[in-house]
Parts: sequence; structure tokens; C-alpha cells
Amino acid sequence: MTLEGKQLIGSETLTAQGNSFQAVDPATGDSLEPTFTTAGQAEVSRATELARAAFDHYRETGLEARAGFLETIADKIEGIGDELIERGMAESGLPRARLEGERGRTCGQLRMFARVVRAGEWLDVRVDPALPDRQPMPRVDLRQRHVALGPVAVFGASNFPLAFSVAGGDTASALAAGCPVVVKGHPAHPGTSELVGRAIQSAVAECRLPEGVFSLLQGTGNELGQALVTDTDIKAVGFTGSRGGGTALARLAQDRPEPIPVYAEMSSINPVFLLPEALNHRAAELGEAFIGSLNMGAGQFCTNPGLVIAVEGQGLDTFLSAAAEAVKASGTQTMLTPGIQQAYDQAVAALTSSGKATEVARGQSSEAPNQCRSGLFVAKGQDFLADETLQQEVFGATSLVIACTDQAEVKRVAEHLEGQLTATLHMDDADTETARQLLPTLERRAGRVMANGWPTGVEVCDAMVHGGPYPATTDSRTTSVGSAAIHRFLRPVCYQNLPQALLPDALRDDNPASLSRLVDGKREH
Amino acid sequence: MTLEGKQLIGSETLTAQGNSFQAVDPATGDSLEPTFTTAGQAEVSRATELARAAFDHYRETGLEARAGFLETIADKIEGIGDELIERGMAESGLPRARLEGERGRTCGQLRMFARVVRAGEWLDVRVDPALPDRQPMPRVDLRQRHVALGPVAVFGASNFPLAFSVAGGDTASALAAGCPVVVKGHPAHPGTSELVGRAIQSAVAECRLPEGVFSLLQGTGNELGQALVTDTDIKAVGFTGSRGGGTALARLAQDRPEPIPVYAEMSSINPVFLLPEALNHRAAELGEAFIGSLNMGAGQFCTNPGLVIAVEGQGLDTFLSAAAEAVKASGTQTMLTPGIQQAYDQAVAALTSSGKATEVARGQSSEAPNQCRSGLFVAKGQDFLADETLQQEVFGATSLVIACTDQAEVKRVAEHLEGQLTATLHMDDADTETARQLLPTLERRAGRVMANGWPTGVEVCDAMVHGGPYPATTDSRTTSVGSAAIHRFLRPVCYQNLPQALLPDALRDDNPASLSRLVDGKREH
Repeated sequence: MTLEGKQLIGSETLTAQGNSFQAVDPATGDSLEPTFTTAGQAEVSRATELARAAFDHYRETGLEARAGFLETIADKIEGIGDELIERGMAESGLPRARLEGERGRTCGQLRMFARVVRAGEWLDVRVDPALPDRQPMPRVDLRQRHVALGPVAVFGASNFPLAFSVAGGDTASALAAGCPVVVKGHPAHPGTSELVGRAIQSAVAECRLPEGVFSLLQGTGNELGQALVTDTDIKAVGFTGSRGGGTALARLAQDRPEPIPVYAEMSSINPVFLLPEALNHRAAELGEAFIGSLNMGAGQFCTNPGLVIAVEGQGLDTFLSAAAEAVKASGTQTMLTPGIQQAYDQAVAALTSSGKATEVARGQSSEAPNQCRSGLFVAKGQDFLADETLQQEVFGATSLVIACTDQAEVKRVAEHLEGQLTATLHMDDADTETARQLLPTLERRAGRVMANGWPTGVEVCDAMVHGGPYPATTDSRTTSVGSAAIHRFLRPVCYQNLPQALLPDALRDDNPASLSRLVDGKREH
Repeated sequence: MTLEGKQLIGSETLTAQGNSFQAVDPATGDSLEPTFTTAGQAEVSRATELARAAFDHYRETGLEARAGFLETIADKIEGIGDELIERGMAESGLPRARLEGERGRTCGQLRMFARVVRAGEWLDVRVDPALPDRQPMPRVDLRQRHVALGPVAVFGASNFPLAFSVAGGDTASALAAGCPVVVKGHPAHPGTSELVGRAIQSAVAECRLPEGVFSLLQGTGNELGQALVTDTDIKAVGFTGSRGGGTALARLAQDRPEPIPVYAEMSSINPVFLLPEALNHRAAELGEAFIGSLNMGAGQFCTNPGLVIAVEGQGLDTFLSAAAEAVKASGTQTMLTPGIQQAYDQAVAALTSSGKATEVARGQSSEAPNQCRSGLFVAKGQDFLADETLQQEVFGATSLVIACTDQAEVKRVAEHLEGQLTATLHMDDADTETARQLLPTLERRAGRVMANGWPTGVEVCDAMVHGGPYPATTDSRTTSVGSAAIHRFLRPVCYQNLPQALLPDALRDDNPASLSRLVDGKREH
């Protein structure tokens, strides 16, 4: 397929008039063909008008038709073949195995949502039949289902050019809910975005859906995203990226004449607690495994373990020695973009000059462009409690170990943490009571609490929560990964005494899709 | 019980040092004993600190214990006896039957949430067991449940001194979810609030719960509410009241260092569509019934029918004649507060002087204090489409009828509407196709769509939606009435590979409460 560098708006491909830009191969610094241009207000308006026009039809597609559409998108993405992997590698600097795995995850995610759509639990059907003889007042017939919010703006993320981008979790869950989607592609991988966008465009046509169900807008700068979030036809936003970016979008959305929800997944340092008995028995092993997780994808994961907390002593010393050796042995890795690499170096320099954090080890260095050199630092618990800057996320393969005087200080550090995507306990059976003391704090602070693992690796399943209190996300009440993500794009509607002929299928007496329903307070299957 | 005019903070009763105030009987204009004082920052901090201290314990109370607590509150409210009804009548000007009904609704609502808590569906338990042999990568053990958000600030509403006040729907659903509650009582009915607050305080003690589970702060002015919403220990807000008030609270909450959700139920004019065949067959009957709904509670309902839309012609003329007769026969009714009565007169005067709305009829007048004189106005469809001020809510028994040239203009008026709590269709069988054309618009615009009824009257049940797109509420994704309101105060947490000894009961392998769970994608009961 020849990349065209165009906007995909409904069934059309258009050339926008804004700034031109090209992707850069971060491993070489070379620009990649073709040249893209930046969409402006005209393209935003055209895409959102088409989305609005498609909405009433698309949100009422049957469960089978909608599920089939999601599966067709997955098939079409797989159908692109190796071109997608190669373009993704060139635009991101990520290795082949990672992108192949990410493609599998992306298509698996679409197929999971197809299963979720078919099962229909997301409709949350409730029926309270009329009680005409009830005293002192009769009850009318009341039925509830969930409907889609409206067209959704999705912002592609740089760090997962497939799984959190054009056909990523936000798009898949919004389409599953019945929302048309307008994607703002990330300018770091416009070619990858175009390939995937054309796959979705082709699936829309093949499934004979209204063209406005999907559009892809490309561009650099902040104006495009701002125009999208403030467009009156957009009813919700999905975003994965920086705290600054997510917070700005949330504020824009709140300041609209009609405020809309923003699901921004932003910032997390993913604290890892090493409990005493675990440290006693396997400190060196933990230290080595820790750096394995830290270095994954050059640390460019939302769930990268950026903070380790333990009581000082011989166990922690052993852990630090093993971790330091592993860091020193770490080769450099290409980061996603020159901007991300510069921000990483600046954040590590700020840590070095903080006066509170001490460098334990750095990885190998390299003269190649845009390289991430791993780093390990240590600070005292009391300094962490006194200095908010030590909680700032370093996006990349650098982590800070907090040495506490005792378990009570560990607990204070836990309470002091901002909201997180994850919190991890490394523990032995003999640590159970210590873990039990920490658990209520971790539940309040994080969306996912784990034992004896590492936070990198986010399974796409029903039980996953990839979310958490602010600033991990702008909305702790949901998740951006896993089947529950569909609920972000739904709202309940109640139907009172509506004739059967006007009720949506899900609410009709004959329940044609055999949905699970809560009828008069009792669950019926 | 002797009213003390004090703050109820945890188990204590305290006198605050702020402005003093007394309730006013709106029917007479007389002040009512005792004098209350306004809580300040010290009282807010004390209440929220106690709430924070109570949170980890309260949110893990067992289902039976928590349900029993809600039922004990209901019992204690009933135990107050007639003193509650008489104080409520004096402070609100509402008649006895209305307050007795509201007490029944309030206690019924608490008992409904007890049933919901016991059933446990709100936990939304999901279990994805480990798959150690899965290729290419094993799956870890992942389990999800919902946990309470944290302490909730609830603002009592003036128009339902029991059902939307201290022990109203927001408090009941937040307590059901496991959130401690700090209520800001409405200054129009501080005595009613104190009686109910003491009932909850007594239930907390009887159920041996931490005292911080409930506090009641009283006062006038905006500072108290602002201090509560910006308090770092408060994690969500429930509010029923004006659009200005709700919007201001939402903005305050968004501007916090840690933004929090605000569930404000604010403003709705509840459009009623009279379809052609219904008008042909029963215009006079509809006109009379409409005024019955309009006059209920002096129109001081969120669901008051403030807008009627129909195609002009003989049917609409007959409807208007019958409605006009009913309005002229309407006696005045006492409004809740002098401020509400003044705002009502100003809003009716603005309609009169708009140049777009024509007065059809006014109700009888009266020299008694704080009276609501019913009003009926008519305007043209094209004028409604051109003038946003005609959409402004008139809080009280005045409604505007929009006469459209044809059904296409009716549809344009429907599309032009802001978000609403309700939308109503009066229709005969022969109107089914006309209704079908309007339905998608109404689903996008309102939380509850009904046929052949009137929007006043909001059943407390599983299927109810008392919510809707902005400005009906600040969050269309939920409801403030009915069992689904519990979801407002919950967030998901995922547990990965946690030992059984640390898992919450709901997630343990042995499922001690026999909860419904989604296990490996399949529903188990």
C-alpha cells in the first residue's frame, strides 16, 4: 500500500492545508516519506458532522452486526501484513517482536469487545413492570438500557503505536459502545496510523455502515486536538499521554458550554514495595528482575516501575547491588522520539541535581541518536516525604529507590503517594500481616494491586483495571484496558410506559436477544 | 426532641461561630426557633478528618452489616414521629400529605439500597484465573471488585426536605457504596435537617460504626459549601439545586489539585410533545391533566413540565383553552422560600416582557406571603429556535407552550433543546410513526423518555433514570434516583496474584457471600 499522507474523513481521503511534517526514524534520525499535512478546523468540522450524522444509525446496530464490524477491523489490520510492522518499527524504534505482539494485542482486543458486545451485559437492562394495583400509588412501567454517549475523540499515544493508537483500546471500546470515533493520530507515527486508519475505513465500507463511524485526522501542534475536544458534536474524549496534555484537555472539556467526560490516562510511577521477608530471602533475585521490568521498552510504559520502597538494611543493600549490576550491564535502547529522549535526559539530570537522590548506577552509553541510558537512584524516606518533585514521573528506564527507616515510614510514604495505575507488593507468606497493613492504602491509591510480579504487562481481560486516582487518570471510576472500558462511553436511559412497538429490542417483553435482565429486582437470564 | 441548632460532627454536637440564622415559615413569614449558626473551616476539617478516619473501616463492612445500618436509619427516621412532619411543614410550606409521602419515599429508598447492598451486584466481581500454560505468554490471576470512592459531600436540596436532603438519595446511595457522608444541610429547613441528622447519628452509634461515617454541617452563604468541596478528604459531591450552583461546584471540584466527580442535578424544563392524533382525540383532557402536573408542589419539581410542543391548529387551540381554564381556576400555593418566590416572579416577568411569549392565562392571586401564581404562556416555534432565553427554567408553576407550523419544526425544536431529565410523548396508536421519528432525538436529549404520562413523579426503583445530558446534570452517565445511583460512588480495583489470605471476601475462591461473578468471561451465579 502506498502511503498518501492524507486525512481519512469518512469514506474520503483529503489533503489538509496545515503545517507539513514527516515521521522520523528515531534510530537514525532520518525523515520518512511521505509528507503529511496538518488538519485544521474545516477537517475537524467535516469529520464530526459525519460522525453526528452516523450516530443514530450506528448506535442502534444490532449486537451481531456491531460485533462483526469489530472483527472485520481486526481481520483488515492483520491483512495489512508485514508493511504495518515495518512502518511501525521505522517510526517508533521499537523492535519487531514488540510490534508483532502489539498487533496481536490490538486485534485480540477488538475481538474481545466483539464478544462483550454479543453478550450484551453492557446494556444493563432493567425492567420494573407496571403495578397498577399498588397502594398507595400504582407503579408505571419502567425500563432501562444504556445508550452510547455520542461521537468520541480519541488521541493516539506515542508509546503503543498500535495498541493505544488508531485502533487501540479507546477506539475499540468506543466503537463497541456504539460511538462513532474521530481519531487524532499521534504525529510520531503517521504512516502506521494511516495504514490502520485505512483498514478501519475499509471495514466500515464492507460492513455497510455510515461513513461517519470513523475518521482519522493527522497533524502536529496542539490546535488540532483543541479543535476536536471543543467541537460541539464530540461527546467524550479518550487520551493516553502526559499529565500536562491530559490535564489541559480535561480543562478544555470542562470549560465547554456543554462539558464532556475526558478519560485521560496520564502519569504513574507505579510504586513497588519490598517487604522484609521477601528481601531476606531473595533480594538479589528481586534486584535483577526489577531492572528487567525497568528496561522493558526503554521504560516507555505507563506501568514502568519508577519507585521502589523498602526498609533500609542488609536486604535492601543486596537488592541495590544486584540492581546496580544489572543497570551497569544494560545497553542503551532507542526511544520513541527525539522529544521524549530529551525530556528523559532532563528528568534524569533534575534527579541528579536534586540533592536528595543519589545515583546508584547508570547503564552503558552510546553515541547513537535518541538513546535511553538506564538509571538507578536512591533517596531517603524522609526526603521523599518532604520533596514533591521526587514523585514526578521520569518517562524512561530510570527508577528511584526509597530507603525507609522502618515499616511505619514505609506506610507514610505509601500514604503520601499520588494516585497510581499500579502498586506492587513483593512478599513472602511471613509478610502477610505487613502487607495487610499496607493494603487499604494501596487500594485507595492505585487501580491495580499486585503481589510478586512487575507492573509492566497489562492483560486485556474482564478483570483488568488500567486506571486509578488522579493523576494516574482524570477519572478513577473506570479503566482504559479490558472489557469494562466500554462503560466509559455509555449512559442510562429510562423508558416509561412506552408502547412495545417503540421500545428498543433489548427492552421488549419478548427479549429477542435473550439478554440477562434485572426484572422487578430479580436477575433473569 | 428539643432542637439545639448545633452542628452534628461524628458523635458530637457542636456550636459553630459563624453567622446565625433561623428558618422562616414561608406561609407566614415568621422566624422559627431555634437559632442556628454557620459552620466554618474548623468544623469542615473536623468532619472530613473523621470521615477519612472512618473510611477504611466503613468501606469494608460486610454486606449484611451495611444493609442493616441503612435499615436502622430508616427505622430511626420513622421513630421521630410527627415532630418531623410538623417541622418540615413549618419550614417548607409543603402540606402534610406531601411530607408524609416524602418520609415514606425516603425510608423506602434506604431500604431499597439495603436490598441492593445485600444482592452485591454493585461489586461487579470479575475473576480471570491464571493460565500458566497459555501461549505465547501465561496469564496471571486477575480479580476485580468495586470499592468506595471515599468521603462524599452531599448538599441538601430545598424542594424535597426529606427525600433529597440529609437522608435523601445522595446520602443513601453513598452510604450504600461504602462512603462516609458529610452533609451540608439546606438553610431553608435546618430543623428538619437536625432531626434527620440525629436519627443517622443515632444509627451510627447503634450499629457500632466509626463516628465519622456521618456528619451534618449547617449554615448560610456559599463559603461552607466551597470549603467542603475543596477539602482534600472529600472524594465526590452530590448536589441537587440550581444550574448556577451546580456549575460553580463542578468548576471548584475540577480546579482542585486532585479533581473529583460532582453529581449535580440542576436544570430541566421537561418538554412534553403532543402528537397529532392524541391532540385530535383528547386535547381538552390533556390540557386539564397538564395543569394538574404543572401545579404539583407549586411547580417546585425538577421534573415540572415547563415546555409543551405541538403543531398549531384546532387540537392545540382546544388544549390551550382547557389548560387556560384550569390555570385560571388555580389557587395560589406557598413556595418554599422567599428567595424562590422572588426568583419565580422575576422569571415570569422576564417571559412576559420577552416580546416572544404571550400570556395565555394566570392563576388566582393572593396577598398571603410567598405565593406562587400559576402561569401559562405560548410562543411560536421559530421564536423558540431563535431565542435561547425561552429555554431557561422557570422554577415554579409556569409553563410555555410552543406552537409549531408542522411536525418538521417540532423535530427542529426537539433537536434545539438542551439536555433534560425527561421528555414526554402524548400519543395514540396512530402517532407511532411520528413518535418513532422523534425518539432518537429524545434519547439523546433526556434521561427518561415517557409516553402518555406526566414527568412529575419519579419512582424509586431499579430502572429509574433521574439524570440526563448537561445542563440537566453535570454527569449524564448516571442517575440520582433509583438503585443505579450507587455506581456514582464506586471505582474498580484489580488484584493480581494476591494470596487468598489478602483478597477481599468478594474475590476469594470460596465466594463466601455467593455473589454473582464473571469468571473467565462466563457469568456464574
